[in-house]
Amino acid sequence: MNIYDISEKAGVSIATVSRVINGSTSVSEKTRTKVLAAIDEYGYTPNVFARGLGLNTMKTIGIMCADASDPYLARAVYYIEQDLRKNNYDSLLSCTGYSHDVKKNCLELLLSKRVGAVVLVGSNYVENNDEKNTYIRKASDTIPIMIVNGVLNAPNIYSTVCDDHGAIYEITKRFIKSGKKKPIYIYSSNSYSGIKKLEGFYDAMKDHNIPVSEKNCHFIKSHGIGVHEAKNFVTNIAESGIEFDGVITSDDILAAGVLKYAKNKGISVPDELFVAGYNNFDIAECCEPELTSVDNKLEAICHHCVSTLMSVFSEEKSVPKNAVFSGEIIERSSTKFI
Amino acid sequence: MNIYDISEKAGVSIATVSRVINGSTSVSEKTRTKVLAAIDEYGYTPNVFARGLGLNTMKTIGIMCADASDPYLARAVYYIEQDLRKNNYDSLLSCTGYSHDVKKNCLELLLSKRVGAVVLVGSNYVENNDEKNTYIRKASDTIPIMIVNGVLNAPNIYSTVCDDHGAIYEITKRFIKSGKKKPIYIYSSNSYSGIKKLEGFYDAMKDHNIPVSEKNCHFIKSHGIGVHEAKNFVTNIAESGIEFDGVITSDDILAAGVLKYAKNKGISVPDELFVAGYNNFDIAECCEPELTSVDNKLEAICHHCVSTLMSVFSEEKSVPKNAVFSGEIIERSSTKFI
Repeated sequence: MNIYDISEKAGVSIATVSRVINGSTSVSEKTRTKVLAAIDEYGYTPNVFARGLGLNTMKTIGIMCADASDPYLARAVYYIEQDLRKNNYDSLLSCTGYSHDVKKNCLELLLSKRVGAVVLVGSNYVENNDEKNTYIRKASDTIPIMIVNGVLNAPNIYSTVCDDHGAIYEITKRFIKSGKKKPIYIYSSNSYSGIKKLEGFYDAMKDHNIPVSEKNCHFIKSHGIGVHEAKNFVTNIAESGIEFDGVITSDDILAAGVLKYAKNKGISVPDELFVAGYNNFDIAECCEPELTSVDNKLEAICHHCVSTLMSVFSEEKSVPKNAVFSGEIIERSSTKFI
Repeated sequence: MNIYDISEKAGVSIATVSRVINGSTSVSEKTRTKVLAAIDEYGYTPNVFARGLGLNTMKTIGIMCADASDPYLARAVYYIEQDLRKNNYDSLLSCTGYSHDVKKNCLELLLSKRVGAVVLVGSNYVENNDEKNTYIRKASDTIPIMIVNGVLNAPNIYSTVCDDHGAIYEITKRFIKSGKKKPIYIYSSNSYSGIKKLEGFYDAMKDHNIPVSEKNCHFIKSHGIGVHEAKNFVTNIAESGIEFDGVITSDDILAAGVLKYAKNKGISVPDELFVAGYNNFDIAECCEPELTSVDNKLEAICHHCVSTLMSVFSEEKSVPKNAVFSGEIIERSSTKFI
């Protein structure tokens, strides 16, 4: 039961219901009576109703994401906004970019708007230098902070993540088990999730007694990197004399660049070179050969994040602080796992 | 000059500045004096300042988009949110889906939140059956309505579009001039922009004396269509006996599916078949061969949309009602234009 039900019941527009609730004088006495009767019939108290209508400080949830033109972040914002609206909350969106100071300012600005909670979308909000996370911890003194794909331990902060470490560990293991003894890893983020992925690669290599050095792990520092930059990057790695028979990447777009490199050099994928991406978006299927990738369960993660927030709001006693979803390896023709 | 400047000048957090402006009692007298002095120094009147702080009804702009997991719409939301924030406006995001009734409810809900304007992102908000646009016209009685890539004529509605007709006309013309006498067009939307593209194809065919029928134009009805659905769709067209030597599509993902079809059938692109997409996102470069596509100038369009809104707010006398940007054909190896 929400504003739509009242509006339908009373046979008036939502705007009119809102005006009645707000005590506006521009509503006729007849209409006002109809609306109040409908509210009465549903047994709403003004306070409960006000939440859905946005008449108190709980009305709006802030969503922060670095860059809504990043497909991963855009999808997450979409899922979260839809789930919040189903629960009668608005979403105040803030695309912060990646600079620490701007993120901090944006969060403070959202607090000054008296949002009921803030959802931080993407692991780039949790920094390795924990001092830089102080502004997030501080905000959690006032309101719940939800993090999608990042973990920060504090009393009023809730995290929902994909087990990125486990997914990259598993994919690296499958490269090795399938005979690839010289895999390299290419990644483009040192965020919380970025570090977990890197450690997954490291751990799998160590557990299979393959030495890891800077020759196996390559960081390409760029947000919004394109296919051709990725292609040039891996070409440079090859030309520097580093040999590899498999490339695992932290993002499908990087893997798409590796496929371009292979095609350009006449290297056969998957026979001579295995390639794997991460996120399993459209790009993975557009590539030729199509990309093996990791389904990061983003929709389930976002859904869990919002339902956790609703539990926090309803003051349920046992709300999980951190939830972890497992990624799923989707094999396509850029690898041939045994 | 904005809240950051005041905060910096006074040496206090933004939240504190906000509390002072709000008349909160939880601020020490010393701090309050510092903040008021800083505001004074910048010559702000509380009312002007309030706009940036979000203390009156003008604080927030509603953004409606059907589906923020669509890359085109996600980017548009991103550009618009960033531009609005630069102008000290918040963005209340509403992902409405494609159903008319839900869109209508969402707009009414935004109005009830007293947003200062609403930006409709994507041409799917303007319906061919003009009666269905009544709710938008009605909203424009109260606040300015900005449409990104759709046109609706009414006093308080402002449109910024890409000339989709012109871009598809031009690309079809180049197919024909390069010797492709049997091009077909595949599209996935009957929105305002979808119709303009289709008409561009029709007009180019007619102007070159090539008959157009249902054999040339194929509608695949689906939002969020995948590469393999598109591949199957074009395979079915070919198997129904329709011959074609070029495929022009309304979206890169459809064109990516055509490339999959060609590869599967051993048809050489571009020698035997030209293929062109639309939007020119990452997917275009991931494909093999890489896709000729149309750069739709989305960033410029969004930028223009927000700056127009700011002109409307500042009550400038001559604000353009409709602005049209030209798309740019980016040729890659899926065509060989003469």
